[in-house]
Amino acid sequence: MLFYFYFRMFDVPKITGIISARNAKTIGFQFPEGLKRQAPALAKEVEAKTGALVIISGDPCYGACDIDDALLDMVDVLFHFGHSRISDDDRIVFMEYYHDVDVDRAVASALPLLGQKVGVVTTVQHIHKLDDIAKILTDAGREPVISKGDSRITYPGQVLGCNFSAVPAGVDSFLFVGSGNFHPMGMRLAHKVPVVAADPFTGEARLVDVEKIMKQRYAVMAKAMDAKKWGIIVGMKSGQQRLALAKRLKDIAGDAVLISIKEISPDRLLNFKVDAYVSTACPRIAIDDAGRFPAPVLTPVEFEMVKGLRSWEDLALDEIAGD
Amino acid sequence: MLFYFYFRMFDVPKITGIISARNAKTIGFQFPEGLKRQAPALAKEVEAKTGALVIISGDPCYGACDIDDALLDMVDVLFHFGHSRISDDDRIVFMEYYHDVDVDRAVASALPLLGQKVGVVTTVQHIHKLDDIAKILTDAGREPVISKGDSRITYPGQVLGCNFSAVPAGVDSFLFVGSGNFHPMGMRLAHKVPVVAADPFTGEARLVDVEKIMKQRYAVMAKAMDAKKWGIIVGMKSGQQRLALAKRLKDIAGDAVLISIKEISPDRLLNFKVDAYVSTACPRIAIDDAGRFPAPVLTPVEFEMVKGLRSWEDLALDEIAGD
Repeated sequence: MLFYFYFRMFDVPKITGIISARNAKTIGFQFPEGLKRQAPALAKEVEAKTGALVIISGDPCYGACDIDDALLDMVDVLFHFGHSRISDDDRIVFMEYYHDVDVDRAVASALPLLGQKVGVVTTVQHIHKLDDIAKILTDAGREPVISKGDSRITYPGQVLGCNFSAVPAGVDSFLFVGSGNFHPMGMRLAHKVPVVAADPFTGEARLVDVEKIMKQRYAVMAKAMDAKKWGIIVGMKSGQQRLALAKRLKDIAGDAVLISIKEISPDRLLNFKVDAYVSTACPRIAIDDAGRFPAPVLTPVEFEMVKGLRSWEDLALDEIAGD
Repeated sequence: MLFYFYFRMFDVPKITGIISARNAKTIGFQFPEGLKRQAPALAKEVEAKTGALVIISGDPCYGACDIDDALLDMVDVLFHFGHSRISDDDRIVFMEYYHDVDVDRAVASALPLLGQKVGVVTTVQHIHKLDDIAKILTDAGREPVISKGDSRITYPGQVLGCNFSAVPAGVDSFLFVGSGNFHPMGMRLAHKVPVVAADPFTGEARLVDVEKIMKQRYAVMAKAMDAKKWGIIVGMKSGQQRLALAKRLKDIAGDAVLISIKEISPDRLLNFKVDAYVSTACPRIAIDDAGRFPAPVLTPVEFEMVKGLRSWEDLALDEIAGD
């Protein structure tokens, strides 16, 4: 199974072809956490076939926003696996990963929960199934709508955890095909339309409920109401840097300092004597790790709510827009 | 006390003077872990006095080798506190930290343990006390010897955890003035001469014993004897990059891959299916965290011993030489 997975996952002829076409001598490989175990075998295979030297990035990688810049500076080409392109640096080759899990059963389960006009989105590993999904909807008498996102989004109908710009307007409901809660939650908060999440791996579908997350976020905001000293976090991953936004929030905060962090973790936040933080880095960090932080960590949207610059009914997930 | 510490620690007029002389608008601050809590107060003071914007590095910092390069690229000047210069990048201002703790009592305690001709070394925070130390030795009828290190070392008599090039030859014993075990241990392993460690903070002195650490290192090496697949770690902190050494060790290892890591931690090593690692990054990492790693992590010196390229009597700490 692992063996099969390895060969399906990695397009070795494409990799060796690019290396020889560019006459590259030193190669970087960067993988998301779940694929790192496959890295040594692939590195050895590519070295044997090309004579190039491969350096595998051992630091965490959570998205296409999370390029290993130090490794990039050390190599002729960096192969970044599992995510679609958001950087236009020619030295980086994005090797997307399409999962061949079937989506039919999950979409069929979703049908009873959907309205007539359905906005369809998914993540990059299921993006090649978008036509199949649309066909199932059409065959069931619905009207699927697929729209283009901004420059951060590679494919029509694609969403990132930080970007829902391909979510179509003017529909009765949304269908999100994929796993996890983060993407459909963000869509549900951003638009006042029901979101149905259909998981291809379980074949199940459900209406997305944001009650629990909203309760948690309002609790974090309530805690931050008393904060006097603020730390405004500038994310140092190249695709997450929003210095201009951080400066604007610092001015709003008054008593505040800018703190640059690459990997945001509870112990790094413990180091500074501030009452609360605002993170301008990946929006998932504030949300997913909320329970582990030693002080409230708000998204920019939530900070504006706490500061009275935005209505408390306007809770939305933070998004990072394309250029 | 903290207040006093703050004013003694930070030379605000020097900082503001450099900012205005360079007409710098965006400033980076980088502190070792123990000083990070002071950062927000200093940032606010410097912003108020200069009008410049300060960004504090929130990522870990363990030495002058550990420059925040991403922050450096974002600012006009980076003030790096607590360590002496090892980089010649003009954009970095190294703000050394001299501790004014008294050394007399510790050196007096060391006298009965020392020979006639004494090689004297210390770390940068006590370097301004070197003349006092030499005088105590001379007054006691001994001959202190202080020598210059290589280009990685700023002051005569200074040692780093990774560089003992200022340790003098041809003496009966060494006197190390400072805290902790790492520096004197490295000196003891590098030279077959007794090392006396005198700690200014406790006033006590002791003969350095390397039995325990040698036992541990030989146990790690014994475990690595059976390793078939090797991971050769390239440290990605700018002052710790030794790619040429890593390539050489990869060739020796045979079945090996290069893995680049910025912060080497047990969970990052768990990601790869290799039997043992060699770290070409900061030599302290393999030693200090030995008990926490999921696989043996050797220094380059130890790896050569395991591979039969160096005698098993030749155990020494790994050093990073200057240019």
